[in-house]
Amino acid sequence: MATGSNPLVSDRNIDFLLYEVLDVERLCAYPWFSDHDRGTFGLYLQSARRFARDVLFPTYKPTDENPPEFRDGRMHVPEPLHRVVPGMVDLGVINATRPADVGGQQLPVVVAGLASAYLMAGNLSAYCYHGLTAGAAHLIEAFGSDWLRQEFMRRMYDGTWTGTMALTEPQAGSSLADIKTRATPAADGTYRIQGSKIFISGGDHDLTENIVHLTLGRIEGAPAGVKGISLFAVPRLRPEGDGLVFNDVHTAGAVHKIGWKGLPSLVLSFGEEGDCRGWLVGEPNRGLAYMFQMMNEARIMVGMNGASTASVAYYESLQYAQTRTQGRPLTAKDPAQPPVPLIEHADVRRMLLRQKAIVEGAFAVLATASLQADLAAHAPDEAARVRARLLLDLLTPVAKSFPAEFGFESNALAVQIHGGYGYSSEYLPEAWLRDQKLNSIHEGTTGIQSMDLLGRKVVAEGGAALRILGDEIRAVAARARAAGVDAAWSDAVEHAFDEAASLTMHLGALGMQGDAEAMMRHSVDYLMLFSVLVVGWQWLLQAAVAAEGLKLRAHDEDFYRGKLKAAQYWMATEIPRVRELAERCRRGDDSFSGMRPAWF
Amino acid sequence: MATGSNPLVSDRNIDFLLYEVLDVERLCAYPWFSDHDRGTFGLYLQSARRFARDVLFPTYKPTDENPPEFRDGRMHVPEPLHRVVPGMVDLGVINATRPADVGGQQLPVVVAGLASAYLMAGNLSAYCYHGLTAGAAHLIEAFGSDWLRQEFMRRMYDGTWTGTMALTEPQAGSSLADIKTRATPAADGTYRIQGSKIFISGGDHDLTENIVHLTLGRIEGAPAGVKGISLFAVPRLRPEGDGLVFNDVHTAGAVHKIGWKGLPSLVLSFGEEGDCRGWLVGEPNRGLAYMFQMMNEARIMVGMNGASTASVAYYESLQYAQTRTQGRPLTAKDPAQPPVPLIEHADVRRMLLRQKAIVEGAFAVLATASLQADLAAHAPDEAARVRARLLLDLLTPVAKSFPAEFGFESNALAVQIHGGYGYSSEYLPEAWLRDQKLNSIHEGTTGIQSMDLLGRKVVAEGGAALRILGDEIRAVAARARAAGVDAAWSDAVEHAFDEAASLTMHLGALGMQGDAEAMMRHSVDYLMLFSVLVVGWQWLLQAAVAAEGLKLRAHDEDFYRGKLKAAQYWMATEIPRVRELAERCRRGDDSFSGMRPAWF
Repeated sequence: MATGSNPLVSDRNIDFLLYEVLDVERLCAYPWFSDHDRGTFGLYLQSARRFARDVLFPTYKPTDENPPEFRDGRMHVPEPLHRVVPGMVDLGVINATRPADVGGQQLPVVVAGLASAYLMAGNLSAYCYHGLTAGAAHLIEAFGSDWLRQEFMRRMYDGTWTGTMALTEPQAGSSLADIKTRATPAADGTYRIQGSKIFISGGDHDLTENIVHLTLGRIEGAPAGVKGISLFAVPRLRPEGDGLVFNDVHTAGAVHKIGWKGLPSLVLSFGEEGDCRGWLVGEPNRGLAYMFQMMNEARIMVGMNGASTASVAYYESLQYAQTRTQGRPLTAKDPAQPPVPLIEHADVRRMLLRQKAIVEGAFAVLATASLQADLAAHAPDEAARVRARLLLDLLTPVAKSFPAEFGFESNALAVQIHGGYGYSSEYLPEAWLRDQKLNSIHEGTTGIQSMDLLGRKVVAEGGAALRILGDEIRAVAARARAAGVDAAWSDAVEHAFDEAASLTMHLGALGMQGDAEAMMRHSVDYLMLFSVLVVGWQWLLQAAVAAEGLKLRAHDEDFYRGKLKAAQYWMATEIPRVRELAERCRRGDDSFSGMRPAWF
Repeated sequence: MATGSNPLVSDRNIDFLLYEVLDVERLCAYPWFSDHDRGTFGLYLQSARRFARDVLFPTYKPTDENPPEFRDGRMHVPEPLHRVVPGMVDLGVINATRPADVGGQQLPVVVAGLASAYLMAGNLSAYCYHGLTAGAAHLIEAFGSDWLRQEFMRRMYDGTWTGTMALTEPQAGSSLADIKTRATPAADGTYRIQGSKIFISGGDHDLTENIVHLTLGRIEGAPAGVKGISLFAVPRLRPEGDGLVFNDVHTAGAVHKIGWKGLPSLVLSFGEEGDCRGWLVGEPNRGLAYMFQMMNEARIMVGMNGASTASVAYYESLQYAQTRTQGRPLTAKDPAQPPVPLIEHADVRRMLLRQKAIVEGAFAVLATASLQADLAAHAPDEAARVRARLLLDLLTPVAKSFPAEFGFESNALAVQIHGGYGYSSEYLPEAWLRDQKLNSIHEGTTGIQSMDLLGRKVVAEGGAALRILGDEIRAVAARARAAGVDAAWSDAVEHAFDEAASLTMHLGALGMQGDAEAMMRHSVDYLMLFSVLVVGWQWLLQAAVAAEGLKLRAHDEDFYRGKLKAAQYWMATEIPRVRELAERCRRGDDSFSGMRPAWF
């Protein structure tokens, strides 16, 4: 990377993933993407890059330092966001992947997603108003009535209104089974909504004229638990006559988040005056199933948030390490010699390469998962669609939690490289460290992702998804061997997969025998193991493509050598952990599960 | 732990370490400690506990939210600190371990250190004014002239003045060889000091009438590098006639630290007007050697900061997990049943037990290291003193960096357990997470600690310290076997030691062959491996004592069972990592060291 201003995300790496690793141009052969080619992808990417670097990034620090304020019952958003949030609409980010008939561009999710990484890295909060709106509008597009599509979705996709997802309630937290928000059928076909929601991102602001909350609630008489949850579109202002009237949606308070400062997280109160109308989306009691569409998209988005937040910090610390001089090499301590740049110290290079391996590993997993979303929706062949859906479902918990957990470590390394300066708010890395911490919590904690992976995804359809992953890994290993990549790396990744597969059978058998607790006890260890493996697969693939590229494009040698070194790092440092983690899961140590509350 | 207010640090655990694990009462048989017994230790501990809980802890959040302000060239400290910082002096914290003839109580370092943990957990910044003063005054006590002891040290020990350590300069960072501050001999026997220092904690404030900066500088004509550094006492106000006059020490600016908000970190400028006088401490050009006394004490103190910061957060998340209800057990999902406390979920218990293992493991290492400081100074037998000094030196990099690195993870788990609430500044865990991050940076970064351990400590005197550790570990393993602790645990810790020792020989041989880079390449991995081993040794010891205690004190069963479970956790989860880390160090993977700057 050239020194200079922070690139946020590496163009060369994104192009490498799109065109060399994933060959996304092949999507253009499908009817759905027939208006696209590398040229249209490039235009979209370029506009996102430019906006992120020139417009968004300069607003990041002012946004972090000057969050929206709660005044007179409303959230007031400070100036720079009033400029850049509406400004971003023109890029087409809200409905980039949606069909032309709803105003979208029918771009592949993989292209739009990687373009959004620049915007997230530039100003995460600013982007996420649109990210949330996209998910909410897509729910209406998929399951809503024509009236809702016309009145609500259209205005959300065109940026006139924003959207939120309103799931969490103060008493229930992650336990959606305990949602209490009530919906009472009214004579006009709508429902009267009454209840309280918390941690609603973008739940109020003065950036647009209206906000639509995609809200989970219970219709009177519905079954208890998750089977009695319905989905409603609840606008802050409702259409009445020619205008909009207040819909009894109150902002009851703001949570003082430690990061994502530009995007308020709110307590909302619906129906305090008995006059809050909600429009049912889809069928009664199927709300959670619908919401999973948004949650699954949101999980990939959170993964992208995490990778982007780690990326911008990585480049900041890389630039710092290239320019800040300090100390001398281990073997040349003569104080008369000038000090060297930090990057000359092996341990600083270790921290930088670890960041690179995490950041680029995360983007590779996210790009691969996103490509599966495109294939699952648009591949002409049904078997290919089914296969892609299984792989996407399998990868989603990894794509969500790996950037959050490893990204947090990566962000801490960016602080560490900055030394005492990194510990100050005069420098940016500490702000990104704060931003990153949310990603292991929202949209399903890491613990919840681990239960989704082990309890559902790897055992679904008799382990079909795991077999697909195995096939992918073996194909990549063969390609790497053919490209001249160190055969030990291919062996190691294949062996790690075999260990994971054998462990999965062992744990699955415990579940079949009725001991779900033993099966799930080490689910987070399992998720970490699985993440290391999946990222190892992606690094092996990148190494294969880099080795091929070295022969074809010698002028790009620096880039490919860096890829091979990062892959080497992953094989040497992370892949060997799979064995240790697998043994840990298999032994099933009961120290914590057997720990009684009184013993702490 | 009983629910209720946060205990900051567990009394039962501290008493366990002092009296059951380390038997510190035996120190009272030495002449130096002859005025002490468990009663006097208890009184000192009790006053620290009470002050920490009743007075300090309520000021933590106000201090975090309302840091000192830079106004008219001075730092102005807000109210609560004006009350509690001087209030703490009466506990005797500044010179608790110092001799009676300088006003101290001659308490063991291990007792005073564990008492200070309560104060650090209560309000880290408030305590550290005194921690820094103690280290600075001790330097004058050890190396200063009678005049300096009378005029400076005495006032620092009695709390009238405070002290700082002024090492770091803006251009030099961790590289003390590049210190530029100049000292010019003057006719009056003092020196004229000129230079700039940065990150000076407590470098200015309005809590006391004066501040003495123990400052590293170069006397004109001194050799380049670390061999030309001298130590000076440079007061903000200097004694002249009957009063104090300004000594040309200016506060040039404040660093906006992200934690430790009550303790300002400053840029100081000495001698802008050519009238800054410094008093030489000890001999010229020996400053760094002297400063190492303070730095070594400070490293143990930083370890204690880290353990305390992890401790208070652990208890906060434990209480939260005991009281907050959410969700249902894996095997009882009936939504008609009431939700259970978070602690009933296995993964929450995993996070809590991991915190407990880290916090109590860190305190055990710190207590053991501190006891060595007492033995090294006061054991009647010279061989015992030498042995203790070697062990203390060996343990110091672990005692400094383990609480910082693992503590940061532990603090992040406390945030995670609080879920979305943990991500808000309405709750305390996020503040402790910020506080913790400094501990891997100041007083020698984790990278510097790793070079100290591998490059100096384990190879010193032909590996003498490592052999002592081996003897200690074998003795503990035998004791644990005799107490009926699972023999596999003793085997595992002994085996981990053998792996570490064999690796050390291998790496040492590389160094002897002249390949220092290969020897030191994985020094941070080595430090992590060594830390896991040392903490494993301490957990095995605690398990042995707990197993013995179970037979003797059945009423304390809950406490001992918890100790055994935490030990089990460490054996199952961390000790197996030693093998993997040792293999990593031995393989000597050169991915990062071979990475060229242009390849990133």
